[in-house]
Amino acid sequence: MAKEKSVSRRNFLKIGAVGAFATLSSTLFGSLTSFQKSANAMDKHQVHAGLNTQLHEGMKHGFVPSSEQTVGYKAAWDALTNFDYGKVSTLPNGQTFREYEITARETEVEISKGIKFPGWAYNGRIPGPTIRCTEGDLLRVKFKNLSAHPHSIHFHGIHPTNMDGLEAIAPGGEFVYEFEAKPGGMHLYHCHVAPLARHIHKGLYGNFIIDPKKPRAAAREFNMVMNGYDLDLDGENEVYTVNGYAFAYMQEAIKVKAGELVRIYLSNLTEFDLINSFHLHANFFNYFATGADPEARPNYTDTIMQCQGERGILEIVFPVPGKYMFHAHQSEFAELGWMGFFVAE
Amino acid sequence: MAKEKSVSRRNFLKIGAVGAFATLSSTLFGSLTSFQKSANAMDKHQVHAGLNTQLHEGMKHGFVPSSEQTVGYKAAWDALTNFDYGKVSTLPNGQTFREYEITARETEVEISKGIKFPGWAYNGRIPGPTIRCTEGDLLRVKFKNLSAHPHSIHFHGIHPTNMDGLEAIAPGGEFVYEFEAKPGGMHLYHCHVAPLARHIHKGLYGNFIIDPKKPRAAAREFNMVMNGYDLDLDGENEVYTVNGYAFAYMQEAIKVKAGELVRIYLSNLTEFDLINSFHLHANFFNYFATGADPEARPNYTDTIMQCQGERGILEIVFPVPGKYMFHAHQSEFAELGWMGFFVAE
Amino acid sequence: MAKEKSVSRRNFLKIGAVGAFATLSSTLFGSLTSFQKSANAMDKHQVHAGLNTQLHEGMKHGFVPSSEQTVGYKAAWDALTNFDYGKVSTLPNGQTFREYEITARETEVEISKGIKFPGWAYNGRIPGPTIRCTEGDLLRVKFKNLSAHPHSIHFHGIHPTNMDGLEAIAPGGEFVYEFEAKPGGMHLYHCHVAPLARHIHKGLYGNFIIDPKKPRAAAREFNMVMNGYDLDLDGENEVYTVNGYAFAYMQEAIKVKAGELVRIYLSNLTEFDLINSFHLHANFFNYFATGADPEARPNYTDTIMQCQGERGILEIVFPVPGKYMFHAHQSEFAELGWMGFFVAE
Repeated sequence: MAKEKSVSRRNFLKIGAVGAFATLSSTLFGSLTSFQKSANAMDKHQVHAGLNTQLHEGMKHGFVPSSEQTVGYKAAWDALTNFDYGKVSTLPNGQTFREYEITARETEVEISKGIKFPGWAYNGRIPGPTIRCTEGDLLRVKFKNLSAHPHSIHFHGIHPTNMDGLEAIAPGGEFVYEFEAKPGGMHLYHCHVAPLARHIHKGLYGNFIIDPKKPRAAAREFNMVMNGYDLDLDGENEVYTVNGYAFAYMQEAIKVKAGELVRIYLSNLTEFDLINSFHLHANFFNYFATGADPEARPNYTDTIMQCQGERGILEIVFPVPGKYMFHAHQSEFAELGWMGFFVAE
Repeated sequence: MAKEKSVSRRNFLKIGAVGAFATLSSTLFGSLTSFQKSANAMDKHQVHAGLNTQLHEGMKHGFVPSSEQTVGYKAAWDALTNFDYGKVSTLPNGQTFREYEITARETEVEISKGIKFPGWAYNGRIPGPTIRCTEGDLLRVKFKNLSAHPHSIHFHGIHPTNMDGLEAIAPGGEFVYEFEAKPGGMHLYHCHVAPLARHIHKGLYGNFIIDPKKPRAAAREFNMVMNGYDLDLDGENEVYTVNGYAFAYMQEAIKVKAGELVRIYLSNLTEFDLINSFHLHANFFNYFATGADPEARPNYTDTIMQCQGERGILEIVFPVPGKYMFHAHQSEFAELGWMGFFVAE
Repeated sequence: MAKEKSVSRRNFLKIGAVGAFATLSSTLFGSLTSFQKSANAMDKHQVHAGLNTQLHEGMKHGFVPSSEQTVGYKAAWDALTNFDYGKVSTLPNGQTFREYEITARETEVEISKGIKFPGWAYNGRIPGPTIRCTEGDLLRVKFKNLSAHPHSIHFHGIHPTNMDGLEAIAPGGEFVYEFEAKPGGMHLYHCHVAPLARHIHKGLYGNFIIDPKKPRAAAREFNMVMNGYDLDLDGENEVYTVNGYAFAYMQEAIKVKAGELVRIYLSNLTEFDLINSFHLHANFFNYFATGADPEARPNYTDTIMQCQGERGILEIVFPVPGKYMFHAHQSEFAELGWMGFFVAE
């Protein structure tokens, strides 16, 4: 895999190692939030300085969260709990019919305080909407390409091959994906137009949950997409997130109740890095890779990895109240935005 | 892991992102096929341009495959279905005895249309022959080193340690590896002479299948080795394939029948990248990692990853006719050659 | 992930490929051992030349191990079999109480013959002590930060969140971590102060074994931590080891008995590389990922991978006497120090 020289980034981390950057970065961070510059106008020094300030603040247990709730921050919270069940009706044969409308277009998204990314987005969001249904439902996804580039939607799962999103839909074009939802499990979707790395990295992806016919146990449920952003187009990510916004759940923790079942639908759509991972502090979880085999025994652990396109379901019970950190166990990803908290009450 | 600067490669991808390279690449690709230059005479621009043309053509559902069947293309098809069972006889004690002859030598192989690679190859092939037998057979592998460098054969599996291929066989030398085949499962072999990265990357590897005593269910079977080629010796791969030839099964799809059981013996011998992966479109498969535990429950999914040396068995049933794409879910690997189709009829 | 240009390293490997470095490296290696220079005074050429000489010597089956037992070499052997059970007492309620004392401070460690690393170490060792106890024990870990930097201990496992090591302990400061050990399984610990990559990479980590209440079968047990060292601070590792010292178990093999059960507690704390792995020659093992689910079926294989923070338990029976190599199946890691032998007698 090609990797370019990135002196400024490493230099930055070295400065960090000797403890000198806290002052530097808070200054830069101040200017970032003031100017709300697009990422394209910043160099890696500035981007990483901003992220590190947030990291240092967020890692304090007594950290008082900012009241700033920017557009990108709100979008990440929306992505966490908002499932798109489509427009629901029942067919004459009794089958549930779900209709979704998805557009693709150029969209500038805020990926961290004051850092904007010139993305390509489904329905104006990175990640795109979390499409959710039940095994056996008939799905109709009306796709409209409002972008200047050809795009498509490739769903993971079992369906006719002419519905697999391999065909590029021209700018201005439309396509209707229609298929029966199967198998029950945790899937995802993304654009499948070449160059693939660029189309995926730009933001054209989302989670696709097919609930099994026999419902899973009741739980508080969350949706999480792990991704990265290459701001300077050097084939490396400078920012890592879940649900599109760096440190979204660190500024304010995700609220759960001690003792209740928490379920996370987790996928990896990170481009340019071969894997990503999820680590939970002070607790363990059951991990169901892909979640499509109802008889499969989960892995009981606190750390799992996924390559791009892999996904799975985590089931967690927080035994006692507390503030439980979660993050990638690749230190660099964690430090550059992929870190958050659950608070169990 | 050391990674070098590779501006030309990234520049190329950037051009791709703005849609400008289609014309550029088809021109270059034309010249590539005409001149059949060795990869050493090309720069990354040229190599990647050629690959991208093939990618763009191949991804069209209505793509009419070329009638060009070059040497490398034919070799990849041979590697897909040709299993080497050796010269078979029965020992006085009733044990099946299999004799194989394997050479190592410098071999120039064609790895994509018009791109040649100065490899080191077992029996003149990259990957080497797929050695196949049944658990409990006595194997005798006569190895002859016809190369100017020392080499060996290191088999994965259980056998006496003096048969593990750690000892380098000098140029012109011979060695006879002899051991009982076990355990039943999906294994592989490769050269184990230092520097390892170079000896493996040059092409000295292949699959090694030990059928269990109780045979697996009848199936249409395929052999696949995931690999990469570092053409400019910069410690990064420029071309990725299964079975040695970029896009081999994209120009023409692998034929299967809807409803039948398809079994794939898959390994990862990619050097320089930490993992490789296999993703199937529009369908799911059962994955038996290593395939040596007959009681193990497979993973039911559409995407799996392997580090180098890992391998496994995929069992797939294509439910309905169609053209099912498969590829690495690392976009870069897919775009640079590791992509193909099954056609179910 | 950012990767910098490292021409010298790759040039070195290229020289190796054409067979020219054996002489070169042995000369350099001689000077390395004489001068015992700190790694900071060497360039990559020198470091890699020294490692390659050891590699080439060690890979000979008839290799007579050196009688040199340097400080780092002895430390690696100590880490292999030394488990820290703490100061044990029984509480009034019958619970076992274990007290540990752990310091963090700047420590120069020898990581290969003649190569020193300016590390940060728990109790003066890289990896730190292997903390071992039984599920349900009450643990009290007195942590004293004798370093010029803030540090902490983050344990994996289930415990109150105020004991998770997120809070940085200032230079000169102390903290007492106290919690009940759970769940039974194979865990680890590391510093959790930002910048994380630097704090972990510098050496602040170790294994943490919680034996299940129902003891595992009797076995010969070993402790192994996979790690890497970035000597020139370029964000890449130049040396890879298990238990801190390159090729420690290659100079002299780890002694076991044919037929007995061997158990290895293996973790990955390698920074900068996304995964690491373990491959065993001429034999298979059962792998229990995390080892916390007593009902989980192990993977039966000879090659497993772990991302940072992952860990597991290997159970091996060596069927017959012999010298069984083990190493990372990333060739580069193996060649740069992560390689050793078991000798079964």
